[in-house]
Amino acid sequence: MSLFNNHEQKINDAIKALHERKFYAAYPEHPSPAIYGETADSDGQAKFKASLGKKFEELKQSGATSWAGQEESPYLQESLGISYPIFSTQTLLDNATKAFHQWRKISARDRAGILVESLERIKNRFFEIAYATMHTTGQGYMMAFQASGPHAADRAMEAIAAGYEELNRFPSTTQWDKPMGKYSIQLNKEWRAVPKGISLVVGCSTFPTWNSVTGIYGSLITGNTVIVKPHPGAILPIAIFVAEIQKVMEENGLDPNACQLAVDTFDKMITKELAENSAIKLIDYTGNSAFGNYLESIPGKTVFTEKTGVNSVIMDSVEDIDKAVANLTFSVNLYSGQMCTAPQNFFVPSTGIRTPNGIVSFDEFAQKFVDSVNGLVDNPKAGPFVLGAIQNKKTCDRVGEAESIPGKIWLKSRTFENPMFKKARVITPVVVEVDASKTDIFSKELFGPIALLIKTKDTDESIRLARQLAQQHGAISCGAYTTDAQVREKIADEMSLAATPVSFNLVGGIYMNQNAAFSDFHVTGGNPAGNASFTNPEYVTKRFTWVGHREPVKVVG
Amino acid sequence: MSLFNNHEQKINDAIKALHERKFYAAYPEHPSPAIYGETADSDGQAKFKASLGKKFEELKQSGATSWAGQEESPYLQESLGISYPIFSTQTLLDNATKAFHQWRKISARDRAGILVESLERIKNRFFEIAYATMHTTGQGYMMAFQASGPHAADRAMEAIAAGYEELNRFPSTTQWDKPMGKYSIQLNKEWRAVPKGISLVVGCSTFPTWNSVTGIYGSLITGNTVIVKPHPGAILPIAIFVAEIQKVMEENGLDPNACQLAVDTFDKMITKELAENSAIKLIDYTGNSAFGNYLESIPGKTVFTEKTGVNSVIMDSVEDIDKAVANLTFSVNLYSGQMCTAPQNFFVPSTGIRTPNGIVSFDEFAQKFVDSVNGLVDNPKAGPFVLGAIQNKKTCDRVGEAESIPGKIWLKSRTFENPMFKKARVITPVVVEVDASKTDIFSKELFGPIALLIKTKDTDESIRLARQLAQQHGAISCGAYTTDAQVREKIADEMSLAATPVSFNLVGGIYMNQNAAFSDFHVTGGNPAGNASFTNPEYVTKRFTWVGHREPVKVVG
Repeated sequence: MSLFNNHEQKINDAIKALHERKFYAAYPEHPSPAIYGETADSDGQAKFKASLGKKFEELKQSGATSWAGQEESPYLQESLGISYPIFSTQTLLDNATKAFHQWRKISARDRAGILVESLERIKNRFFEIAYATMHTTGQGYMMAFQASGPHAADRAMEAIAAGYEELNRFPSTTQWDKPMGKYSIQLNKEWRAVPKGISLVVGCSTFPTWNSVTGIYGSLITGNTVIVKPHPGAILPIAIFVAEIQKVMEENGLDPNACQLAVDTFDKMITKELAENSAIKLIDYTGNSAFGNYLESIPGKTVFTEKTGVNSVIMDSVEDIDKAVANLTFSVNLYSGQMCTAPQNFFVPSTGIRTPNGIVSFDEFAQKFVDSVNGLVDNPKAGPFVLGAIQNKKTCDRVGEAESIPGKIWLKSRTFENPMFKKARVITPVVVEVDASKTDIFSKELFGPIALLIKTKDTDESIRLARQLAQQHGAISCGAYTTDAQVREKIADEMSLAATPVSFNLVGGIYMNQNAAFSDFHVTGGNPAGNASFTNPEYVTKRFTWVGHREPVKVVG
Repeated sequence: MSLFNNHEQKINDAIKALHERKFYAAYPEHPSPAIYGETADSDGQAKFKASLGKKFEELKQSGATSWAGQEESPYLQESLGISYPIFSTQTLLDNATKAFHQWRKISARDRAGILVESLERIKNRFFEIAYATMHTTGQGYMMAFQASGPHAADRAMEAIAAGYEELNRFPSTTQWDKPMGKYSIQLNKEWRAVPKGISLVVGCSTFPTWNSVTGIYGSLITGNTVIVKPHPGAILPIAIFVAEIQKVMEENGLDPNACQLAVDTFDKMITKELAENSAIKLIDYTGNSAFGNYLESIPGKTVFTEKTGVNSVIMDSVEDIDKAVANLTFSVNLYSGQMCTAPQNFFVPSTGIRTPNGIVSFDEFAQKFVDSVNGLVDNPKAGPFVLGAIQNKKTCDRVGEAESIPGKIWLKSRTFENPMFKKARVITPVVVEVDASKTDIFSKELFGPIALLIKTKDTDESIRLARQLAQQHGAISCGAYTTDAQVREKIADEMSLAATPVSFNLVGGIYMNQNAAFSDFHVTGGNPAGNASFTNPEYVTKRFTWVGHREPVKVVG
């Protein structure tokens, strides 16, 4: 196979980028016609529309018993009408087992070549995936393109690169020559990176490709076969990934069942049945903590989770309060707070925030915050596209409930009109003031556009609470604003101990919600928000076992 | 501190050796006067003797409440009379927590320098440690010297090297520069390797230093503080290691409580109390599977275990049957089978073993096996030194019980006289023939000098049983003899899937029980015999968390 040679430069660049952690993108994030072609966007949209109401017939896997699908567009609030083949658990496992003994035996080079080739094919479908993502997750167009297309492909590339590097970490053979005085003991030794077996990747409804591809590609590069179980509400984007992987496998004479799609429906979920089967050795999961903790507790599995966390912002002192507030409220509005990295708890000292122009009081900050949220929401050229739509109706209910939190309601949630989708399920952020003593209110994730402004005694209390929340309930991101080097180091150190990355003093076009592949580890694995990290060495080394065999060198003579 | 500079070459050599996996030893294994000095042996013995019946007063840790110790020599069958300071769990944890915030903040270079320096100091006490090991574990002199001295120090060095490399895997700072068309977003990023906290290392009675030092040094190099809980029957060897580590720390102005010894007694064991405390984040353990499984199941801990396994030998075809048998029976006799890597189940086809001189029948093999065991046992210049003494009286009971296994007793266990220690607790191997259908008999570890010759239909059945045992009950080593390349690959592949390393066709002075640091991964972590491996990258990466912080580059204008 020459696929590795075709992509060798790209793989080497990715490995280098993983180590340098400077800016690197394997796939351009801008949906520009100059990059992706003049008609790429309209073609992708047309292809998405053509798939509505039909069977998704691109998969190469065998043994379907029926067809089903329950996806619904948050923008149209109507069914997509797409149906997917349904397989019994036994068929999925039989297929995966059979494919395993072929896939595990091909070289790491060949696996890498096939996997990168699949990303190159997927690149041609980024726009189609973008529309599929909008109409399953409710993401705005730009986020849907970037997160499900190039950013996901970059995370996949990162997993391929990390896996490929680890598989080559130790020699496949060597001669061991131990001097024993008058003679020496000579052994031929060999090491095999033995994949663990069948891998189950459980997707989520908000980021159906971004959160799943690292597990898929991480397991595949290390020789495992994969069963992808998407969220029943967000299938199409990842189905396109799986279909393209299968096509490249089949074209190269390999069993496409090495990567299967396992669709289920809300009335008959199959994740538990799959996860508990003894044939499943690896599980990747993104979703709520209760189910994640259950998966982690199943004996005999290697489990990688991204669960929920409570993300804090610590306000101490700031160069330009308006720029800081604008940055933070963008993070709150972005995809209506439906990101695992979105800030929820804003810790502000009762004595206010120091600035070069004097103290900004708690109330002044709150008012600026509310004005800034409104400014974006009410900007018809930005608001609807930044906020997108709400994936799950329960998120709207939660926002409603937030208005009965005991504390001053600084901003009530409302709706707005999306000019392109009149029926879109939308809701704007609610902003509530909470006293620092009411830990029970802010010690849990309130998923969605809910911002709590928490009045603390001082920055030390803010830090203490942010650290404690992260250690006890998990955190994936943290924002902090301080112009004091000592306070900065205290925040950096304390949040490090809670395994939470801190974005300091962000202003302008970069937000605490954003994590860049090849540079930012996504989730650290060190607090209850998840036990894994995109993509540290552990993320791939845990998917296989080093086994060494040895034998005396034959004496020729 | 200049300690790193003193040892930089050694650390770099060790990292190189870890990757090449050729023969490498940081500490010479031969107890030669030319290497260790003319009087090193007698000095060490004298020092050991001088410690008997006294308090062990070398530790630098504070807050002891009493003194106790219950070690007993398997060679003398009498108490060593050494007592150690006893600490409350709370004192140990308070000391460890206080030391943590100092130890975690010093650089990886400084930690590496201190830890290698401690090994250099320990090197001067290898003979004293050897006698301490003989008289706690029952090991023969040569094994006691090698395993507890240079081989343990090599494993410690391996952990330091692996940890040091991983701590330097990613840059501590970099500038991330993302082009955005007309401008770019510039962030200063930094990554911290954040230690998990307090580490508990639980030792075993048979290899008190070798099995504990990787955990101790692996946790220390990555910035954790360590509490070493030795087996109450084998304290002195590891107490000397801990004392030397503490001395180097104190000499360098550091809190010696970063590595504490936590001695307990048979009547008041403290492992559970320590392990379950929420302050303990890491646990290293060597010992029985029941307690290992319990430790693995405690929520919120990162646990590294070496538990028990059932090691198989697959006899298919062989160049020289006598050399093969001699090699295998040495493995059975060595330290009376009290090694986790010792073979137990010998799978031999009922059709016999192919050799260039014709078939060796099952019975002929069994007779050669028995004769070879006896030959070594009855050699007064070799037997007593190879077999050593029995650490735990229960092992003698188990050997006695083995004689009532339903099957032909090919060799009964007996005693012999150790010329140097008339009162030594000794016992010779029992050899029993078992039919392959009686899986319940051979599907568990029979710790001690017990060899089961299992009659199978053919080599395929032997392989199937060996693989199944390893997958279901764990295995740490496997021996195989075959002259057929296809059979060899089948064994290599099938045992790989059971995560068990295979030693093929060993003859002469190398045995399947032996695992060399810097080359052989000890335990793979991929079957029930243990979840960790000395020393793969995971062994150290799981002891800390990568946390990245970021901040916009200040525009100087």
